[in-house]
Amino acid sequence: MSPAGSAAEPTLADVGEFGLIDLVRTAAEAPHVLVGPGDDAALVRTSPDGMLASLDVAVEGRHFRRDWSSARDVGHKVAAANLADIAAMGGTGRSLLVGLSAPGDLPVSWAVELTDGLVTEAASVGAVVVGGDVTAANSIVVSVSVLGDPGEQVVRRNGARPGDVVAVAGRLGWAGAGLAVLTRGFRSPRAVVEAHRRPQPPYSAGPQAAAAGAHAMVDVSDGLLADLGHVARASGVRLDLRSDAVEVPEPLQAVGAALGVEPLGFVLTGGDDHALAGCFAAGSVPDGWLKIGLAHAVDETAAVTVDGAPWPDPPGHAHFG
Amino acid sequence: MSPAGSAAEPTLADVGEFGLIDLVRTAAEAPHVLVGPGDDAALVRTSPDGMLASLDVAVEGRHFRRDWSSARDVGHKVAAANLADIAAMGGTGRSLLVGLSAPGDLPVSWAVELTDGLVTEAASVGAVVVGGDVTAANSIVVSVSVLGDPGEQVVRRNGARPGDVVAVAGRLGWAGAGLAVLTRGFRSPRAVVEAHRRPQPPYSAGPQAAAAGAHAMVDVSDGLLADLGHVARASGVRLDLRSDAVEVPEPLQAVGAALGVEPLGFVLTGGDDHALAGCFAAGSVPDGWLKIGLAHAVDETAAVTVDGAPWPDPPGHAHFG
Repeated sequence: MSPAGSAAEPTLADVGEFGLIDLVRTAAEAPHVLVGPGDDAALVRTSPDGMLASLDVAVEGRHFRRDWSSARDVGHKVAAANLADIAAMGGTGRSLLVGLSAPGDLPVSWAVELTDGLVTEAASVGAVVVGGDVTAANSIVVSVSVLGDPGEQVVRRNGARPGDVVAVAGRLGWAGAGLAVLTRGFRSPRAVVEAHRRPQPPYSAGPQAAAAGAHAMVDVSDGLLADLGHVARASGVRLDLRSDAVEVPEPLQAVGAALGVEPLGFVLTGGDDHALAGCFAAGSVPDGWLKIGLAHAVDETAAVTVDGAPWPDPPGHAHFG
Repeated sequence: MSPAGSAAEPTLADVGEFGLIDLVRTAAEAPHVLVGPGDDAALVRTSPDGMLASLDVAVEGRHFRRDWSSARDVGHKVAAANLADIAAMGGTGRSLLVGLSAPGDLPVSWAVELTDGLVTEAASVGAVVVGGDVTAANSIVVSVSVLGDPGEQVVRRNGARPGDVVAVAGRLGWAGAGLAVLTRGFRSPRAVVEAHRRPQPPYSAGPQAAAAGAHAMVDVSDGLLADLGHVARASGVRLDLRSDAVEVPEPLQAVGAALGVEPLGFVLTGGDDHALAGCFAAGSVPDGWLKIGLAHAVDETAAVTVDGAPWPDPPGHAHFG
């Protein structure tokens, strides 16, 4: 019961697990959803080519902060991280399963808005939430599993070949610059702070790259150099980027100037924008992708280089730093 | 570096996320796995009838305790909880995605043994781990998503009809009795403690029930009365159980006597055994299932009754109690 005279906001403990499941059981209406939320498992129709599947976990204080991001922002962010994994294989996300672990005193409104953000981001590619789990925990952990349909081919990390052109689709460094300003207590430039809160992965560029015959592709979640490093090692090539081919947009230059750091670092090592980076045969880079380097046969040099030399700083996030 | 003279065990922070992913990247060799762990997403071959999908989250201190269960036990337990969800739809689990959130000081061996338990439990039904995510957190949260193939029909919660026979497959109350003794500081009877650590869901009874034309089915994770309550409400029936039809095995009687509680309570309200409870047309209950009650048209009474009356105690777990 609420104390007299106050309108205490209901918490997860007030409504309980099953009440919350009912609250967030948004209508998962889509032709491929044969059984939606509310049973022991969902049933989805799949492509004859199989199903892409991935799982990502976002932890409060590590991947998001409630004083920096609204619940809706967090929903958009974790859905985007997952949907971008499917895009990076050349496919399209179709179904999400969501696990929310949270303290009992979390306001129900936070959970509902989180789900709303997730559902809205998913809808941008035609995906729906088909199930999930809600459980008590000391801090907020959001686990999302995404299922998707493959594109014209499945693009892995291990197919890059010497002579391939390295190209990127989507924004690089924006979310990293946003994180840098938030970490220092600022809330502007607004464009980079918004990029940290709600990344804008270039979802359709994934199937586009698959259709263009991309040899390898990865989603830039940890940093361009870190993620291209996976491609380089899996493919056995050296990827050399040209710093003059990489764009450093004006808001990133402003952040660099304000914080006294080299803004190219945001572009090369900033995470969480979920750009796509791919390797293509020369002449087959799709429209809208920016060519930034070349794949070479492996030599003694590091797996990813910039203007022929190793980048001196860490290539991206270190999750257990 | 380890201090001289000691052999400090390596932690997650020592090996980092990518080292750990390599450590736990067990060979996901199975004919249906087209792309396994290590890329942005896995690719699995699916049944023409679609794919069952579920996600469950286990939180340290809520679903398991490291002083009660080994890492391998926890792996078995979380895999079992997920695989049972697929069985409860009449299907068979095929692929697992695993998210591990854990403090950086967690020994690597714990994560490796957790994975080993998961992989071993999954193998018991022919399922494999196809991907996952590892991230830092203040406490251990294990998120598992499971994908599975439907059986001859998909059995939901909402199909029970008046006149149906209620039947169960698998053990009831064992894990609950184990939890009761562990909570009071005891470690025996060993059989119930082991049941808490490693449930033994009757996986094959799920597809068996589907083939027998089951009208409704649910996995008993929260307690028989609680989970049958979902079936009763979804189907619009009253399910009446006969207390003399329910078996109270000897170890549960021993725990009841030692703790001064009614052992039938473990059977009716204990969670985590992942038995299956189904509703069948009279005459079509499969071999090995125990008939425990009948479905009736809805009247004024509670959705699940025992010997015609509501059970006086809570029907099962309250997750945000």
